[in-house]
Order: sequence, then structure tokens, then C-alpha cells
Amino acid sequence: MKSVDVLVIGGSAAGIVAASTGKAFYPSKSFMIVRREREAVVPCGIPYIYGTLDSISQNVIPNAHIEQAGVELFINEVTAIDKSAKVVTTADGTEIAFDKLVIATGSMPRVPSWLKGTGLGNVFTIPKDRDYLENLRLKLEQCTNIVIIGGGFIGVEMADELRKKGKRITLVEVMPHVLNAAFDDDLSVKAEKILADNGVVLRTGEKVGELIGDGVVSGVLLENGELLDADAVILATGYAPNVDLARNAGIKINELGAIRVDEYMRTEDKNIFAVGDCAEKFSFITRIVKGLMLAATACSEARIAGMNLYGLSRLRTFSGTISIFSTAIGGTTFAAAGVTEHLALDRGFDVISASAEGIDKHPKSLPGTSSQFVKLIVNRESGLVLGGAVVGGVSAGELINVIGVIIENKMTIHEVLTLQIGTHPLLTGPPTGYPLIKAAEAVIKKLRSSH
Amino acid sequence: MKSVDVLVIGGSAAGIVAASTGKAFYPSKSFMIVRREREAVVPCGIPYIYGTLDSISQNVIPNAHIEQAGVELFINEVTAIDKSAKVVTTADGTEIAFDKLVIATGSMPRVPSWLKGTGLGNVFTIPKDRDYLENLRLKLEQCTNIVIIGGGFIGVEMADELRKKGKRITLVEVMPHVLNAAFDDDLSVKAEKILADNGVVLRTGEKVGELIGDGVVSGVLLENGELLDADAVILATGYAPNVDLARNAGIKINELGAIRVDEYMRTEDKNIFAVGDCAEKFSFITRIVKGLMLAATACSEARIAGMNLYGLSRLRTFSGTISIFSTAIGGTTFAAAGVTEHLALDRGFDVISASAEGIDKHPKSLPGTSSQFVKLIVNRESGLVLGGAVVGGVSAGELINVIGVIIENKMTIHEVLTLQIGTHPLLTGPPTGYPLIKAAEAVIKKLRSSH
Repeated sequence: MKSVDVLVIGGSAAGIVAASTGKAFYPSKSFMIVRREREAVVPCGIPYIYGTLDSISQNVIPNAHIEQAGVELFINEVTAIDKSAKVVTTADGTEIAFDKLVIATGSMPRVPSWLKGTGLGNVFTIPKDRDYLENLRLKLEQCTNIVIIGGGFIGVEMADELRKKGKRITLVEVMPHVLNAAFDDDLSVKAEKILADNGVVLRTGEKVGELIGDGVVSGVLLENGELLDADAVILATGYAPNVDLARNAGIKINELGAIRVDEYMRTEDKNIFAVGDCAEKFSFITRIVKGLMLAATACSEARIAGMNLYGLSRLRTFSGTISIFSTAIGGTTFAAAGVTEHLALDRGFDVISASAEGIDKHPKSLPGTSSQFVKLIVNRESGLVLGGAVVGGVSAGELINVIGVIIENKMTIHEVLTLQIGTHPLLTGPPTGYPLIKAAEAVIKKLRSSH
Repeated sequence: MKSVDVLVIGGSAAGIVAASTGKAFYPSKSFMIVRREREAVVPCGIPYIYGTLDSISQNVIPNAHIEQAGVELFINEVTAIDKSAKVVTTADGTEIAFDKLVIATGSMPRVPSWLKGTGLGNVFTIPKDRDYLENLRLKLEQCTNIVIIGGGFIGVEMADELRKKGKRITLVEVMPHVLNAAFDDDLSVKAEKILADNGVVLRTGEKVGELIGDGVVSGVLLENGELLDADAVILATGYAPNVDLARNAGIKINELGAIRVDEYMRTEDKNIFAVGDCAEKFSFITRIVKGLMLAATACSEARIAGMNLYGLSRLRTFSGTISIFSTAIGGTTFAAAGVTEHLALDRGFDVISASAEGIDKHPKSLPGTSSQFVKLIVNRESGLVLGGAVVGGVSAGELINVIGVIIENKMTIHEVLTLQIGTHPLLTGPPTGYPLIKAAEAVIKKLRSSH
């Protein structure tokens, strides 16, 4: 029987960060990651395997990082956890005794059970599995008409990458707009325009009836009776927490199928932690339990688990996910943090939202200047910033983190109005018209006129 | 006699923002800007007139912005302020009565009084004056050997732009390194390497003796006896607040020559405000009075003055400058916020600093990926983040604003460690190795090992 102080099950982003943070905090303890896959893909980089990157091997988290952190990597599949004996068993019968256990088993593509035809050839999902993704890459090279079902981030990013390779892409989304969970309609419409301008056919507000084909998929039948030609179908219909192992071990699972954890990322067993896609999430703002999965959130949870392994710290707790997203569509950045206006209203917040549009370099005659749009969502009663969104150039990816820190610090819109920022012609919007500040001014104007 | 509710003297960035913010908050009041120059140049864009931009007219703040804000623009020079009568007089004898006055007279290049030869032809400064700058552009086109005296931001940016035009540039700085006020030596050395690799000759640690020439400058004699050939010399030796008008009116001036103001940006006269380069600055962290001039700080002050004109708000005060800088040298971003390590030590803080180097997209095989270096300076006793610096690609210009908001919110390094961020392959560093978080981990490691 092997024996280790801290055992981490799963070695994608969250598992690696939990182990390496833990090892840095508790250097005298021994750490081991058990992972089924020989190599872990960079999860959020997956869509870029199908367009921008030349090969899948460019999108792998190097195992060297794990070794350099002083963590042992054991390629194997854990098949059972014995909580009381503090032992796990692997597929080949190896037993590993642990003192602390971190479950980072991630998530798996959710295939709609009601949908007929998902078993046909050339119907794919996007799992975090290198071999599967490599095979998908080869298969898609042979295809011309690709139908993507689901207009969330993965669906949109896959559409944007595959159209760069000259594929004819149809994106089907049952909601009225793409990216509906992350953005209000005003932003989703901007994203849709870019996709459509780049040749992606959008079928929003349409429900899929069934997948058609004889052995191999040949079309997607919409509920409205329309048939879309398809050489391949990609199901981008969400992910489910991968918790069978935990459930079988008697670890509590919440109503959304995720492992129940506290703010230290501990399960009810004080020696067992869970982090990442398999672990429960709740919203920083609405406090409701969420199914959202983001690598950055997973890594934040993993750091917290790693630091709390041998001694809890009131300083280092998870306060709920702020849901900071970003993506690039046709070279334009779309990013959001906190709640959308529609979610805030739905949850019972009286909110004021306003936006401002400017530029991301100044003067605008500088080469490479993009427009930059910033929207803020503010609680009328408290003045607290509850959410924000940015559409712009590359720098919008960090500007959304400015808004994230504003939300995390519970800043009011008045504080944003007097916020100090740094600006530079080649790097940011102008100090006189920095879109984030202009959006704050627009919110204040609405607040004042409503008194 | 003209009469206006709010009169703003000076119409560069700070004056425009004070007037337009004031008008937005107090729409029933009349606002007028009196400005000597027909057009205002974008102040921080000035160096880019000499390289990246095609003409000076591309670097002008449109007067239309002023009119659109509902503010009257009156081109004239104010020659006297009568505080008690609440009237100003202009060069052509016009009198303008005001209820509230905002002084935004900016700054003027500081020419070292001890330096011989500054009156020679082809010895230039960089004032915020369109005609002067246009003439300078024409003159420099005729020159080959240009010596820039002063290795602060303006000197470095002018050097980097002019070398793009094929000029032979020598940059002389009396301190051991360039950008010494903004960065610790480790970062300055990185900037110097880029400048040198691009052909700029650096003479750091060298003091200028005198400027040599017969009518027109022909050389710069260093104190060490060395003579540098020069067809033109640019004095980038700092700026002095432009306060003659205020001083003559009996408004209090501080020990650094700036107009004394409180946290509402008011002078001792409750109807007179001052903002921007002419107004007093003090440090958010060290609380010492500073001579630092930044357009972004000026605009923050201007917004605060504008909002407090007719009724002070305890919510909207200036809490001291955080000194958030950024620039790009040879296409690499250099940025800093808060204090440097050397300033913190000099002012009596026990600090721990640490840094981390990573990438600004992920995986690094993505096109356009730059390295990203983040340094954090932390007060050992309190754990508060006092300063930070970033060297990276374009996104570093907003990442420094993330650090600025961290400092402004008085966050501790423990909070940075659990900070939630958003990441995306095409836009930011990886969630597993986001350099800001890795730098925080490096600080914590030092903190823990020092117990």
C-alpha cells in the first residue's frame, strides 16, 4: 500500500493548483496527484485547438510543473474512496492511504437525455480528454457543414474557431440570444453581429427536435420542422459535475449534483476537500447555489483548499463566485463580472444600469485602437456595484478584473466615480473619458434624476 | 462684464473634466472655460507626435467635447484674479464675474537654472503648447544627433519615439537608472535593456555640465569631461506648477510651488478650487506632499472638484495619489502603482517584496503571447499591499489598474492570494499561474519563512 499525506484525485487545473499551493504552504508534507490521463489539456484553451493553434500538443499543461512543485504524479484511475479507513483504491488495485484528500474530479459533458440521435457517428461533445479531442480534430477536418448545439461560451468559441478554418457553421441556441447566462441582451446582440458578419449562421430561439442520420449524423431537425444539413454535430450543452466517486463514498452531493463544501472548500468530512467543477458553487452576490464552471474560479478554490489543509484560516476563505468571464469573438473581447441586469432583477434587486462607449487607446488615431464599451449594474438602495461588462480590445480581459476587484471589495458607485486609474496613450482609454468612469457617471446621473 | 456661475481657468485635460463633470452635476449652472490656446493637445500623447502619429492634429482634444458638455469655451488669457470681488480679468481687458472658480493652469517645463547654454538654438523643452510642439517636430526632422536630458517618462518616451524615426539618440540621466521615481532598479534595468537594444545610447549616472554651441547647440558637455555631439537637445527635466496667477491673487502656494488644496480640491477660499498639475498632491500611502504630475490623477481631482462645487460630499474626496503609471518602451509595457520598494524603505516601512514571471496569454504557443512580470511590495507588519509593478504586453496597462484598485481598497496580501480573477487563453495569463497571484504567493512564502 502506498501512503501519502495529501492525495489529490484529478490533475487538471484545480487539482494541480490545490497540490502545488498545499505543498508550498506545507513543505514537510508529501503530496500526490492521481490522474487518469497521461497529459492534461489546458481546459479553456480547448476551442483554440480547432482554429488558432497548430496542434493539440500546444495546449497541454506540462507535467514538469507538477514535479517542479514537489508533487508526485501517479497516472491511474481512482475507483473507490474509503472515508473512514482513509484509503483510495485505483483501477489496478493499488491502495493509497492518505491523511487529507482533495477531490478535483472535474466535470463531464452533459448530453441531453431527451435528444434522439446522440449516439450517431460524428456527434461529438467537448470533454477534457486529450485523445478524444485529437480524434475530433481529425474528424472535423473532413467535415464541411458543422452544427453546434448550445450558444454558451464553448459553443460560441468553437463556432468562431471553426469558421476560421473555412467550415460552414450553424449555431443553434434555444434561448433568444447566445451567451445568455453571462450577458444581458444588449451585449449578446453585439456578439451575434460579429459571429454573423464572420459567416456563422445563428439559429437562436430555436429548439432542436432530433439528430437525423443513418449510422452517421446527416442533419439536425429543429422543432419548427426545419432540417439543417450536418456532417458533424457538436453538443455544447453544458457540463455536469463528475461526482460518482464521491457519491459512492457517501460524501454529500447538493441539489445541482456538486459536492457540498464549506467556505474552506471542505466537505462534511474535515479531512476531505473538493475543488473545481465537481465542487459546489454559490454566488458572491445572490448567494444562490450555481452550476457555473470556470477555470479561474476553480483555481481560486484550489488555492483556498491548499492553504487550509492543515489548519483553517479565517483570512483565506471562499466568499462565493463573482463569475468573472471573458472571451474573444472575431477578435473582439466580451467580458463580464458579477451579475447581469436580468439576473439581478430576477433575484429581486432594484438596480440601475448604464453604459459608456469610448476607446481603448488615445488619441484614437493611434494604430490598433478599438472601441471599448463598459456597462455597470448597481444596486439602487446601497449603491453597491453588483455587476459589469466590457466589450473591447485585448485589454478588456484585464479591465474586467478591475471590475471584479471592485465587486469583491463591495465598492459603491460613488467610489468608482473617484477611483484612481492609470492611463497611457498606447495602453488604455483616455483619462478624460475612461469608459469605466464614464459608465459610473452615467449611473450616477440616473440615480440623481430618479430622486 | 461677462458673468458665469462657474469659471474654469485652463482647458487641458483637468480643466475640461472639471467643467464637464460640474455641468453634469449642476446642469442649471452656467460653465465657462477660459483657455489661452485655441486647441489643447492630449498631454500624455505628446511623445507620440514624434514617432507613431503622422501629425500633431491627430493628438488634439476636440473642442466639440466641451461644447457638447454644455460648457462655453472662451479663448483668452486670464491675467488677474480678484478673489474678493470674484472677478477675473483677461489679456484684452475683459472682466468675467464668477460664483465658483476652478484653477487648472497646469504646469510648465522646468529648465535647470544652473545649466549654461539653455538659450542656444535647437535646445527644446516639451511644453503643452501646440505651436511649439509643431515647430519642434519640423526642427527635429532636420536633426540627426539628439541628446535628451532627463530619463523620466517624457525623456524615455521621446527617446523611444525618435529612435523609430532613425534618429541617433543619447539619453542622459543623473540618477543611476532611468525611470527611477517610478520603478525599482530591477525594472529600470529591464527598460534600459530594451532602449539599448533599440539603439538608444544611455548615459545614466552622468551629470550634464553645460550645453555647447555657437548660436545653435552643437554638443553636450558632461561633468566627466566627455562631449556628446548634438544637433538638438531636449530638456526633459521635469515640470513646475503654473501658479503665478494664483500666487498674485493671494492664494496659498505650498512648499513645492503648487496650489494648496484640501480633499475636496478647494483652496482656502471656499469658492476657489484647483485641480491638475498646478494643484497640491500628496501620497495615498506615505502621506508626503509630492510633485508628481499625471493626467489620470489630474482627471480624478477634476471630477472631485466638479462634483463638490455646490455642496461638499464626504463620499467624493481625494484620498491622496496612488501614482498609477504606465508606459510602453519598444512595445513592452512598464507600469507601476503605489510606492516602489526603495521609496517604502526610505519612508520607514518594513516591507517584503517578491515577484513572479509568467505569460499574458495561455498556452504560450498562442500568437502574440508576451512574458508578464509582476512585483508586489507589502508592508510586513500589516500585510497591506503598498505597491506593485508590471512588465508585459498591452494588457499590463489595465493589470496595473487591478493593482491600483487593490491598493486603494487597502487589501492585504492574504486577500490578493484568494482574489477572484477572470482568465481567458487569448486575453490573460493562465488561471493556474496568473502572475499577480503567483507574486502574492511568493510574498506569503517570504512572510512565513521570516516568522
